[in-house]
Amino acid sequence: MRHYLDHAATTPMRPAAREAWLEASEEGGNPSSLHAAGRQARARLEDARERIAASLGAHPTEVVFTSGATEANNLAIKGGVWASIDADPGRRRLVTTQVEHHASLDPARWLAVGHQVPVVELAVDATGLLGLDALAREFDGHASQTALVSVQWVNNEVGTVQPIGAVVALATSAGVPVHSDAAQAIAYEGVDFAASGLATMAVSAHKFGGPVGVGALVARRDVRLVPLNHGGGQERRVRSGTLDVPGAVAFAVALEQAVATREVERARLTRLATRLIEGVGTSCPTGVLSGPEPGTSRPTSGGGVGVRAPHIVHFAFPGANADALLYGLDSRCIDASQGSACTAGVVQASHVLIAMGRSEADATSTIRFSLGWTSTEADVDAVIAVIPEVVERARR
Amino acid sequence: MRHYLDHAATTPMRPAAREAWLEASEEGGNPSSLHAAGRQARARLEDARERIAASLGAHPTEVVFTSGATEANNLAIKGGVWASIDADPGRRRLVTTQVEHHASLDPARWLAVGHQVPVVELAVDATGLLGLDALAREFDGHASQTALVSVQWVNNEVGTVQPIGAVVALATSAGVPVHSDAAQAIAYEGVDFAASGLATMAVSAHKFGGPVGVGALVARRDVRLVPLNHGGGQERRVRSGTLDVPGAVAFAVALEQAVATREVERARLTRLATRLIEGVGTSCPTGVLSGPEPGTSRPTSGGGVGVRAPHIVHFAFPGANADALLYGLDSRCIDASQGSACTAGVVQASHVLIAMGRSEADATSTIRFSLGWTSTEADVDAVIAVIPEVVERARR
Repeated sequence: MRHYLDHAATTPMRPAAREAWLEASEEGGNPSSLHAAGRQARARLEDARERIAASLGAHPTEVVFTSGATEANNLAIKGGVWASIDADPGRRRLVTTQVEHHASLDPARWLAVGHQVPVVELAVDATGLLGLDALAREFDGHASQTALVSVQWVNNEVGTVQPIGAVVALATSAGVPVHSDAAQAIAYEGVDFAASGLATMAVSAHKFGGPVGVGALVARRDVRLVPLNHGGGQERRVRSGTLDVPGAVAFAVALEQAVATREVERARLTRLATRLIEGVGTSCPTGVLSGPEPGTSRPTSGGGVGVRAPHIVHFAFPGANADALLYGLDSRCIDASQGSACTAGVVQASHVLIAMGRSEADATSTIRFSLGWTSTEADVDAVIAVIPEVVERARR
Repeated sequence: MRHYLDHAATTPMRPAAREAWLEASEEGGNPSSLHAAGRQARARLEDARERIAASLGAHPTEVVFTSGATEANNLAIKGGVWASIDADPGRRRLVTTQVEHHASLDPARWLAVGHQVPVVELAVDATGLLGLDALAREFDGHASQTALVSVQWVNNEVGTVQPIGAVVALATSAGVPVHSDAAQAIAYEGVDFAASGLATMAVSAHKFGGPVGVGALVARRDVRLVPLNHGGGQERRVRSGTLDVPGAVAFAVALEQAVATREVERARLTRLATRLIEGVGTSCPTGVLSGPEPGTSRPTSGGGVGVRAPHIVHFAFPGANADALLYGLDSRCIDASQGSACTAGVVQASHVLIAMGRSEADATSTIRFSLGWTSTEADVDAVIAVIPEVVERARR
């Protein structure tokens, strides 16, 4: 029996979401068509949009369907900065952090290199937490030139929860909109778009049991975005392309389940994560837990105290060979990752760990265990049982 | 019983494709993960890619998965022109036609307005056919400044098949790469990417019985593209985002079925289309068939003779109210469209008909009937039975 501990890369699809997808795919129809089949497809799509909006604390008109969080982040960042430049060529600056997912960091860097967009990548502390003082300083004298602040809600590698409430408060007082990549936050954080004050927020369905290939950019109605995909004019002309009704419906069902079970699952996964952290800490004391201390409290709306997401447990094992760590776990039937799954299958030093002040060597010798709705004590205990031997071999 | 005659907007998903999607969605896994679940997902993805490539006459490394044809066209056109400008700032010109789908036309116009890209929209004749002499003239003295030629394979509104072989021959001799939106061509034209000489080609799975939300840009290995979605670096760094394995697998199954039945279906739909054209022509003689004459032969590789796609039958009914046409058919259980489904549910004059020399009024009073793998004689006969009354009422 294999143990899947890579839910942050993708989590198994929930059966109810799969059923919903199946049903909608049998109905067919293009929601942009005016005939009966089209109107029925439109009704299913808009029902899904309303349910998604309700689950995220947003208005249905704020939900722009995309192919996932990568596209949503690209749209928010490129589209948001371009729209700002269109409105005011002097307002083109982008403030982000060094620990963003590549789906946010790489669009920012692309704008910096080719589009005359000054990009500030803010440093983080040793736990991966953004410093609010540093953010505040970025607005001193620069607020009117700043198009956008982009800060992830939960770090996908080490699980640090950023103080989004405080970030938004600072930026709002400076008149700057904030985008957040919430891909890793939806399932376990109390995500309420309206209450958050965010301008835009990226969501990916397959991170909480929906299908791969569908997600959304939640965007306040007053936010101007230059589209990345021009064409038929779907999604208030912000994102063209035939709308994926089965994907949207399955997205809605998975999200509702995730939100309905959020508190219970948060508590359950916190217990599992604590068991994993303590178990690995005891059996493998040279492992260094990344991110905030276990047991840190949830953030207040204005707080800057770093807290852990319940589903991500990330260790550095200094001196261990990264490939050997992965191979050792894999050969013992444990599916875990070095960090992000997205970096095209290549083991390399994590930019997140480097930003947290770790050496290049330490930033390579890492393992992320991530939990999800199918995780059990048996999964955690399997890791605890094999990790000392795996690390020992990887250090040879 | 309703009659669905809008297969060009979206065609019902093939049961075998749905089954394949279901099976792959139960397997799960992120193909960018290195562990067993990830490797298995990767194997399923690469198997799908190979089957898609084989069905399209392409090499597997030429298949870049996207969310559909809209994204693929945007990537080919913006990404292709931007890459050309990066390599040679003087090579930024784009030559296209007036009758492209909005998913190609709108990216071109966006480049023209905001990115100092000179865009030439070539005229077409009364049948929607691009003139090769006009194309040839565009290269006189301009070839070295031209980044890309973009010509759709089959027009989505009226079904005109463009002489892609001749377009490629002309452009290639001028040293200019050609992109084609092949969304409406895959099911019934003899699409062979390698033989076509195209640089890039856009494909959408839901046009031939695959799921909505997945497609591909087929791109020759030597073609440079600036990504629209930056991030994890998937798909040779051209298109980031978690790869949709169930979507890719279902895409492959649907495509294989479409290609395996292509000649039989082409003949069957040609018979149905002829029946529909003759029936409407007899019962409603004031209707004007759009596009090339029925029965025109298939193009030779170098030919410029316009031919009809077998699945699209488009009529203008001069003097008829567009809303009343659509409503009349809809209330008689016929699902057809005015033209493109993508223009966000608004009845408006077709840019394709205008380009073909029709008046604004005629370009609004149109109905497209499009056939597909589930179409029957009963569908066609239902149209023939009701069309005179529908048109008569729409003219009052």
